[in-house]
Amino acid sequence: QNSPGTSVTVYGLIDGCLASADLGSERLNAVSSGCLYGSRLGFRGTEDLGGGLQAAFTLESGITIDNGQLAQGGRMFGRKALVSLSGPWGTVEAGRDYAPAFYLVQPIDPMALGIGTASSSLWTGAASTTSARNDNAVNYLSPTWGGVSLRLQATAGEGGSGGARKSQGLNLLYRSGGTLAGLSYARVGDVADDQHDSAFTLGVKQELGRFSVAALAQSGAWEASRTVAAPASTSSVFSRKYRSWLVGGSVRTGSVGKLSLSIKRYDDRTVRNFDFTQVSVNYVHALSKRTDLYAGWSRLGNNSRTSYTVSDATGAYGPVQAGASTSLLAAGIKHVF
Amino acid sequence: QNSPGTSVTVYGLIDGCLASADLGSERLNAVSSGCLYGSRLGFRGTEDLGGGLQAAFTLESGITIDNGQLAQGGRMFGRKALVSLSGPWGTVEAGRDYAPAFYLVQPIDPMALGIGTASSSLWTGAASTTSARNDNAVNYLSPTWGGVSLRLQATAGEGGSGGARKSQGLNLLYRSGGTLAGLSYARVGDVADDQHDSAFTLGVKQELGRFSVAALAQSGAWEASRTVAAPASTSSVFSRKYRSWLVGGSVRTGSVGKLSLSIKRYDDRTVRNFDFTQVSVNYVHALSKRTDLYAGWSRLGNNSRTSYTVSDATGAYGPVQAGASTSLLAAGIKHVF
Amino acid sequence: QNSPGTSVTVYGLIDGCLASADLGSERLNAVSSGCLYGSRLGFRGTEDLGGGLQAAFTLESGITIDNGQLAQGGRMFGRKALVSLSGPWGTVEAGRDYAPAFYLVQPIDPMALGIGTASSSLWTGAASTTSARNDNAVNYLSPTWGGVSLRLQATAGEGGSGGARKSQGLNLLYRSGGTLAGLSYARVGDVADDQHDSAFTLGVKQELGRFSVAALAQSGAWEASRTVAAPASTSSVFSRKYRSWLVGGSVRTGSVGKLSLSIKRYDDRTVRNFDFTQVSVNYVHALSKRTDLYAGWSRLGNNSRTSYTVSDATGAYGPVQAGASTSLLAAGIKHVF
Repeated sequence: QNSPGTSVTVYGLIDGCLASADLGSERLNAVSSGCLYGSRLGFRGTEDLGGGLQAAFTLESGITIDNGQLAQGGRMFGRKALVSLSGPWGTVEAGRDYAPAFYLVQPIDPMALGIGTASSSLWTGAASTTSARNDNAVNYLSPTWGGVSLRLQATAGEGGSGGARKSQGLNLLYRSGGTLAGLSYARVGDVADDQHDSAFTLGVKQELGRFSVAALAQSGAWEASRTVAAPASTSSVFSRKYRSWLVGGSVRTGSVGKLSLSIKRYDDRTVRNFDFTQVSVNYVHALSKRTDLYAGWSRLGNNSRTSYTVSDATGAYGPVQAGASTSLLAAGIKHVF
Repeated sequence: QNSPGTSVTVYGLIDGCLASADLGSERLNAVSSGCLYGSRLGFRGTEDLGGGLQAAFTLESGITIDNGQLAQGGRMFGRKALVSLSGPWGTVEAGRDYAPAFYLVQPIDPMALGIGTASSSLWTGAASTTSARNDNAVNYLSPTWGGVSLRLQATAGEGGSGGARKSQGLNLLYRSGGTLAGLSYARVGDVADDQHDSAFTLGVKQELGRFSVAALAQSGAWEASRTVAAPASTSSVFSRKYRSWLVGGSVRTGSVGKLSLSIKRYDDRTVRNFDFTQVSVNYVHALSKRTDLYAGWSRLGNNSRTSYTVSDATGAYGPVQAGASTSLLAAGIKHVF
Repeated sequence: QNSPGTSVTVYGLIDGCLASADLGSERLNAVSSGCLYGSRLGFRGTEDLGGGLQAAFTLESGITIDNGQLAQGGRMFGRKALVSLSGPWGTVEAGRDYAPAFYLVQPIDPMALGIGTASSSLWTGAASTTSARNDNAVNYLSPTWGGVSLRLQATAGEGGSGGARKSQGLNLLYRSGGTLAGLSYARVGDVADDQHDSAFTLGVKQELGRFSVAALAQSGAWEASRTVAAPASTSSVFSRKYRSWLVGGSVRTGSVGKLSLSIKRYDDRTVRNFDFTQVSVNYVHALSKRTDLYAGWSRLGNNSRTSYTVSDATGAYGPVQAGASTSLLAAGIKHVF
């Protein structure tokens, strides 16, 4: 219906969980929010403008139900805030959104960016080191041509006398039957826009009956000013030169279960050699189309010099004692509305 | 309906009021929010999973309409953030919620935790001294057996290297006809979890035609590290040993009015003897099932050493000059949607 | 419908735009939110109480979609938070709202407080220098008598030992056919309430077929303590004595377009003579009743001593180099739901 005030859908996902993390010297037991998927509350709507045009908006809050707070550093609509205009030529969006690399990594990661998320070692392209999304973004999404689609994003530096980072990103995806394959590129400048962080990512997922197999590989270098400190930090993933890959897959068990596995390797290609390997597994049991019970486990091996942490969909469990291996066991309920 | 995006109810309560407080040396006149009940906006939904199972969620913001801000220290869903699974065996919830003691005190307090709230001298069990709710909570609610129900809560300390408080609480309630009776226990550890705040509470409310009578009694001791300073503070209720009680009742006047009264006594059982007595009265006039006009008054007598304040459902009116008695007069409108 | 939980309307407006500002020494290119109208999400409802009485509430968040954050300094419902009771005698509201002067200036400004907003040189009466609204407000809105209506507002200082500003405001509006005319008065005390900022405003708008013409004039003086620094600040509009006026108008172009123009002049009547003149133009193209595309431009001439900025509906584009003229070009989409 087109009259104001009747055209908004309220939707969301609430994920509550129990987590136990081995941090090396101690164990952290927690009631958490969003182990499998980040809890969220959203508002969205679309309007048919005629002539093949459509206007739409999305406002999506990330929340942590264990303390009733906003996620994404307290942003009200930290997950997404977009207005868009679509036509036969595609969609143009403005606002805050994930970088294009996210839209390649997320659907391929067997952990779906949950417990043992791929994003802890495969950069999803955000300009901020503490966020998965970009502010001040303009997106272009192409129509799908024979299964192929293109997504572009550019974000304004909005330097003025303050200064901030410009970024650009793209992905090219192919979807057909049980196949998803694609590549992405992400590039973020420093304040002066004369040095850049960048990464190139390839990914593929293939469904084979009850099974699916997945692989991701990324080659990148963080050379903008924010990473000056990285060689000295034992807990910072991504460095002046790195490679990262993931292999894994899923199997549907019975009519309502799904078991997934991923193995990740991060290869720091600088002299610091701050590498790690991580193994993750989860099981999701559907109570309905909207509600799942789940459990997952992930273990990351630190070498004597590193103190990387294990992350779930919402946060990292740390700090980890340097040189200690760390693991996370979590179980919970995910309810979509 | 079970499809995502159609299963959420938006609800709330808006309470706006005028308040005038005698603080001893001066009078504070204010436009306030939530004198009788805290203003709020919530989102909730349930899903029937079949086989007697039900999933549900609640996200409830506390707000102060006088300045458009969030209550509960700026938390987005500071009142409640819960996901739950229910079955014939009861309900398990995870998230942020009141401690069990609240669910005994709130329905018995003739002031309903409004102007002259019982909670200012009857601890409702929260781990934080500045909040009525607990983060990182898991609740268990039993089915009702012959009018009797049990509520348990445990909250994770989530110490890690940061440290926080573990807490446990329970209540046992009996409801039948016009009778509500129950007991509760609350226990909160300090960071090291080697000293504890605790309180035991008894309460009863009986309806007798147009009248209802109510009584609450609590015995407690705050011995965890947060209360080290308490003996020196003239404005902190709850001490290393205290007893507190309330008596009161209500009478329905005509078809739409209700007049309520409570008398509270706080008895500090330490050498500091920081006691007080408080008298509160309110009148609520229903314009409809959803909308009330109300007025209330409460007076608290400080002795020469104390500077306790009078609270309504949303905040305390202070600071009060030491040794002065203080009173609050407030009137407003409460609208439920 | 009168049962709780079914009586709330979710509404809003999302405005996303590209902006380019000439700040004198540099150009700022930005993806912004709310160039034409501030982006917002609101919740409102009404209840018919019978006997000509009606209860209502409004909770309206201001948001910036370019970063997913709350506007109005992070207030949850920073645009409006009101509960009201209406009868044949008018409406009484309590909460947070615009001052009465806003309700005169906003509908007359040809820029509708968007790109080149009138509010940058015509004070809309708020007690805060950084906000357009007042906290702790009680409003009275009269019924309309032969096209004439009255709005009164008083806000509580809520001094206590903290201290804040009391304010009073009113407007008197006449609406009939294509005519809107009115006057407003605003007055804000300093903390001690012994000095006052005040302004008197006159305005008129007349529709003439496809055309409308508009004029606003204000005479004011900021004499409360907050303006002690003003004579020394080259970027602060409003001074110890000032006059300000605006003339402009609109023309509907074709069936879906509207072109608007305004010329503003701010005349600082003190020895500092920090005057400016500003020219603004915008074009709004309706894609539907709910969705518009728009573009606007505004230029403000600073003299050698001033560094005033150009504002749109959400923010100011600065800082501007002293003595430089500054301009803003912006284009975007506005979607109402």
